[in-house]
Amino acid sequence: MKILFAGAGALGSRFAFMLHQAGFDVTLIDNWETHIENIKKDGLKVIIDDKDLGNYKMPIYCSKEVKNIKEDFDVIFVSTKSMQLRPMLEDIKPLLKKDTKVICVLNGLGHVDTLKEYIDPNNILIGVTVWTSGLGGPGILKAHGVGKAEIKQVEEKDLTKTNSIIEQFNKAGLNLIYSNNVYTSIWHKAALNCVLNSYCTLIDCNINQYGSYKDHQVLTDGILDELVKVAEAEGVSVSKEIISQNIINCFDPKTAGLHYPSLYQDMKNGRLTEIDYLNGAIAKLGKKHNIATPVNAIIAHMIHSKENKNNNK
Amino acid sequence: MKILFAGAGALGSRFAFMLHQAGFDVTLIDNWETHIENIKKDGLKVIIDDKDLGNYKMPIYCSKEVKNIKEDFDVIFVSTKSMQLRPMLEDIKPLLKKDTKVICVLNGLGHVDTLKEYIDPNNILIGVTVWTSGLGGPGILKAHGVGKAEIKQVEEKDLTKTNSIIEQFNKAGLNLIYSNNVYTSIWHKAALNCVLNSYCTLIDCNINQYGSYKDHQVLTDGILDELVKVAEAEGVSVSKEIISQNIINCFDPKTAGLHYPSLYQDMKNGRLTEIDYLNGAIAKLGKKHNIATPVNAIIAHMIHSKENKNNNK
Repeated sequence: MKILFAGAGALGSRFAFMLHQAGFDVTLIDNWETHIENIKKDGLKVIIDDKDLGNYKMPIYCSKEVKNIKEDFDVIFVSTKSMQLRPMLEDIKPLLKKDTKVICVLNGLGHVDTLKEYIDPNNILIGVTVWTSGLGGPGILKAHGVGKAEIKQVEEKDLTKTNSIIEQFNKAGLNLIYSNNVYTSIWHKAALNCVLNSYCTLIDCNINQYGSYKDHQVLTDGILDELVKVAEAEGVSVSKEIISQNIINCFDPKTAGLHYPSLYQDMKNGRLTEIDYLNGAIAKLGKKHNIATPVNAIIAHMIHSKENKNNNK
Repeated sequence: MKILFAGAGALGSRFAFMLHQAGFDVTLIDNWETHIENIKKDGLKVIIDDKDLGNYKMPIYCSKEVKNIKEDFDVIFVSTKSMQLRPMLEDIKPLLKKDTKVICVLNGLGHVDTLKEYIDPNNILIGVTVWTSGLGGPGILKAHGVGKAEIKQVEEKDLTKTNSIIEQFNKAGLNLIYSNNVYTSIWHKAALNCVLNSYCTLIDCNINQYGSYKDHQVLTDGILDELVKVAEAEGVSVSKEIISQNIINCFDPKTAGLHYPSLYQDMKNGRLTEIDYLNGAIAKLGKKHNIATPVNAIIAHMIHSKENKNNNK
């Protein structure tokens, strides 16, 4: 089975490594030049749970070189940052064949609509994962722990190939399940990020400090009350109670409490954030359904204003 | 005429100095020990427009020593931070006589209600000022430029004494006028602060940087749309257009653009902020009138959460 990773960042390279290890034919695409050069020269250096597992050679291309790729892929993982999904899909258009299944487990909301513009919904496998990963510099995968993922085929005309992919990928330890609850899971995860990512960035605090404010639930509710209405209008069943509890579970310094969310880190490190796929997406969907979302809209704009002030790119 | 300044901070000590210079009998009350000690020892050191005007001796007391003050005052200026208004009124209760006029030109909303709990509305002169001032350390007044102020007697049974105060204070150069528009002016100033103080603090930017974000008007509107409805319910006529223009006028680096608003500075310097008299007051009044104010409520809570995280006091 030939697998392409369109995006070889933290999560992409972790899955790529796992599948490569399990004997699959894995190819990478990325846009970070030094990352590409290092992997071309020395292979992907893999450090899992602080153990150096060595270097692994996999073909890697810049996304502008897609015309040089002559193979057909059975599966393409889109594993970019949210805002790079559309440009990446533009770049890999020639590789999207009639039978190519595309897996997307990106964080945030709105990706299915983008994917549908390029891909037959019978070929889109949308999902969500709790696998985590990081890069320890260009060409270096640095990850901890294990995870799992759930996916669902957006239109379910024929699930034969999808079931086979799941079966084979689980041989590589991806802990993948087919789930009819995927949309709820995506929204629950996005909701948690809408709250913790945005507030920690604006308040300038870690997750435990967010939870230490006596009225944190008022802040949480401000976002979730709007989000739940929008989710319902989108036909997705979500539970404010479950989301709130998931958030509270992160406060403990022994779990995620001392962590600064990814959006906080993007902001600090001069990068554009994924806010348009979190609170910004809620505001956009609110407009679509004529549901007032002033809190999410203002929060998204504050984050953009902060990106603008920091000259993030 | 005997005048008491209940609060001898930046603005209080500036007005006290002007009235003292003009020959009025001025007494100070404050709560900052070193400030009090320095003024007791050397007098108030006055630096206006970068010119050292010398030191000026005025009696000064700690607010807990009010029982030692045997005089009656014709006028009391309450010139504390917003959150110290109530405790200060508690402390000076014995000095609030049947004829004592109390002038309050504090920033923010909600002060009239607090004053009314202690003072006959015929004795309350509520107002707003564009005089600015600062302290250059304990015992040191450091101010620039000139200003003006407008006041109005909350209940207007008899304006004789108020008119006489205005006339006499203008001999000291306070540029005081009686205005029936005072509530509009108070709300217009508070509205500007609701926008610039809060957003600059949360976005972590100066006023020019706030204005440099392309959608700053969306952020501004998020606060003002709620504020205007609440003002109307309170019977105060405000203009969103005037407020918006006032805000835009501050963006220019040649005016206030390079300035970090006072709330930003309080937050940075470990002090509690006046947010409950700005966006927090809008949220509180919104509840009273059953008007939804989610944006102002969430912004007030974010500021409080940031105070909590910074352990501000």
